[in-house]
Amino acid sequence: MIPAEIIKQKRDGAHLSKDHLCEFIQDYVEGSISDYQMTALLMAIFFNGMDDDELYSLVDIMVNSGEKMDFSNLECFVADKHSTGGVGDKVSIILAPLLAAAGLAIPMISGRGLGHTGGTLDKLETIPGFRVDLSLTEFRKAVEQTGIAMIGQTNEICPADRKMYSLRDVTGTIESIPLICSSIMSKKIAEGIQGLVLDVKIGNGAFMKKMEDAKTLGNMLKRIGEHFGITTDIVYSSMNQPLGTTAGLWCEVKESINSLKGNGTDDTMKITYELGSRLLLQAEISKTRDEAISLQKSIIQSGKGYEKFLDLVKNQGGSQKEIEQYTKLHSPQHTREISANRSGFIQNMDTYTIGLATVTLGCGRTKITDPVDPTAGMEFLKKTGEKVQKGEPLIRCFNSDKPKLQNTVNRLESVFQIGEKQISHPLIY
Amino acid sequence: MIPAEIIKQKRDGAHLSKDHLCEFIQDYVEGSISDYQMTALLMAIFFNGMDDDELYSLVDIMVNSGEKMDFSNLECFVADKHSTGGVGDKVSIILAPLLAAAGLAIPMISGRGLGHTGGTLDKLETIPGFRVDLSLTEFRKAVEQTGIAMIGQTNEICPADRKMYSLRDVTGTIESIPLICSSIMSKKIAEGIQGLVLDVKIGNGAFMKKMEDAKTLGNMLKRIGEHFGITTDIVYSSMNQPLGTTAGLWCEVKESINSLKGNGTDDTMKITYELGSRLLLQAEISKTRDEAISLQKSIIQSGKGYEKFLDLVKNQGGSQKEIEQYTKLHSPQHTREISANRSGFIQNMDTYTIGLATVTLGCGRTKITDPVDPTAGMEFLKKTGEKVQKGEPLIRCFNSDKPKLQNTVNRLESVFQIGEKQISHPLIY
Repeated sequence: MIPAEIIKQKRDGAHLSKDHLCEFIQDYVEGSISDYQMTALLMAIFFNGMDDDELYSLVDIMVNSGEKMDFSNLECFVADKHSTGGVGDKVSIILAPLLAAAGLAIPMISGRGLGHTGGTLDKLETIPGFRVDLSLTEFRKAVEQTGIAMIGQTNEICPADRKMYSLRDVTGTIESIPLICSSIMSKKIAEGIQGLVLDVKIGNGAFMKKMEDAKTLGNMLKRIGEHFGITTDIVYSSMNQPLGTTAGLWCEVKESINSLKGNGTDDTMKITYELGSRLLLQAEISKTRDEAISLQKSIIQSGKGYEKFLDLVKNQGGSQKEIEQYTKLHSPQHTREISANRSGFIQNMDTYTIGLATVTLGCGRTKITDPVDPTAGMEFLKKTGEKVQKGEPLIRCFNSDKPKLQNTVNRLESVFQIGEKQISHPLIY
Repeated sequence: MIPAEIIKQKRDGAHLSKDHLCEFIQDYVEGSISDYQMTALLMAIFFNGMDDDELYSLVDIMVNSGEKMDFSNLECFVADKHSTGGVGDKVSIILAPLLAAAGLAIPMISGRGLGHTGGTLDKLETIPGFRVDLSLTEFRKAVEQTGIAMIGQTNEICPADRKMYSLRDVTGTIESIPLICSSIMSKKIAEGIQGLVLDVKIGNGAFMKKMEDAKTLGNMLKRIGEHFGITTDIVYSSMNQPLGTTAGLWCEVKESINSLKGNGTDDTMKITYELGSRLLLQAEISKTRDEAISLQKSIIQSGKGYEKFLDLVKNQGGSQKEIEQYTKLHSPQHTREISANRSGFIQNMDTYTIGLATVTLGCGRTKITDPVDPTAGMEFLKKTGEKVQKGEPLIRCFNSDKPKLQNTVNRLESVFQIGEKQISHPLIY
């Protein structure tokens, strides 16, 4: 069938057969279907959605466009965690070592910062020497030997997704729930995992602002996972304020190390333990949620979680010596504080603007070629529900580029809403 | 504003400002916005439509992307006729000389065959020596000297429309009413005309199958015309069977010559006169419709219409000598007839399939580079409402390529629906 006919079918709301979808995507990956024809199909999908058959076909085609890992030779439970993205969300860097220390294997393929959200890869790359571009052979070896590896999407993993994603980014076709789900799940399926927990973020700093949309997304992610034989749990959590005390690059790794050393903040550890307990139950390592949470706490107390993090760093070329002196690393040259413009209780934080501000500080990119500043980030001195006095510092911003710091501080003046009443927001729904 | 943001605005149903639309289209014509980003915008327009402000902006941008003719130095009324496309529709070739003979100037920019429909340019090119690629200077001179010229869209006329149209053709974005209207009207406005009559075809051989859609199209075309100062009349006519006795290439020119010599079929002449009378009234050459129809009939009877056609041929490099012997020209090598499979009255003709069959006979292209066969076409021996006997021939197909002829005949076996009752369909609504 000619490409324009397949586009018209989707445009007019007809069902696309797997053969047609497969032909279209294969021809696109090989270059005989052009970017503009793929764009037409993507925009038609944006408007008309996909039924489950089409969705499963799309995921299958994406997975089979590249290599699929196989860890069936391992005796342990092979699993992964994924978050739909937020500000200050460093949970992967804490949870992956924790779970590996508990006996799971975690072959994690992560992403870079996207829009206002941070990316695990960008954070890990601030560890001196750390390589996120392991070959698949190195990746497999690391997982087999230590139960943990964290890399970026390689050319071998889901090349169809990779090519389509770049196009979506510049054609206004990112915000389609079936396209988001197929992109996430194809990479997870290609990891060869048995179990998955997904942290679906909702709120003013998440891609999904409303519970209704988040549920649609979560349900679709779960359906895809289970269709492809992966036990899939969904956790819905709040992104109405940044997670933990920092957002940025190295500062988030530092907070992760602190967390693994037993000094994590309540919110970060609560989500970490919740997500972790889902996988420990899936793996049948723990029998109850309480048991799973206790196990994770004991792994931290024993130092085994932090040891596993050091294994990860070592395996991927990072400098353990520098990590040992982690508090002295990547000291920012400049610091500025944002202060409260009145006294009262913090009602709300504009997390989207805070996320964008981390980008302008130097933690993210507006073009793929932009360099990042490992020293850049911010510390949250107060969070929602806390009492503040007028003039008291709320956020400390830092980086090594003064003009960028100045620009960013201006953007943050009005992100806090301060009022009379003490309020509290749920963290996990 | 960055291109993806403009795409998202239209995608999300927001209004596009003229500045943003202009920037986007200009950058596209110049090449700094890619085909895939234009495709994304076109598909978003397909789904969300355009309000009148956007529509007028789009038309204005298309017209001003190239040259606009100016015939204000002429004393006569400058006008054009356009049809939305059908099968056997050779009215332009008859009407343009008729109106020029009546004292109007007709600077007509026509199109090629599109899908199952025939194109005036393809038909005119079967006249030996006839050039449809006059320069704008030659075009202007011909109109000034003889009141008539018929050419194809040049690089100077609406280059933005030209580039966007090619892209729409391969991305499933043809069937958008605002995009169809802006493409048609931008070229008409660029002709520098004062008056326009549009023949909006409805039926199984037209792009619009339903009166409701045709009305939407017709009303939009009229609004655009009048917004740009062109008196615009709309005629809605039936394309539930081919127009006249032939559909194809040279055979339609031959039928047009016969029509100009006073031997036109009822249906062809009825539409010709109806469309013509609208422009004669606009030009204030006739006071009433009846007077306008009488005038056209007298122009045919006097031979002045045919003379004007000979002027057109001569002006554009065609051989008048060959035209004089027109009945002998382009004789097809092969002929096949389709016969009635039962006796009764013809109830209906599948005009879309008939149109596609003219393409496979050799009258049209599936790729832009396909050669056409000037001898190819078909003659309709019976039409809707007529009584036929089983075995009586209904269509005579001809061309100079036997395998194509055989293939086509097979496609035509079931295009006639024959039943008990004599029925009649309206020709003009």
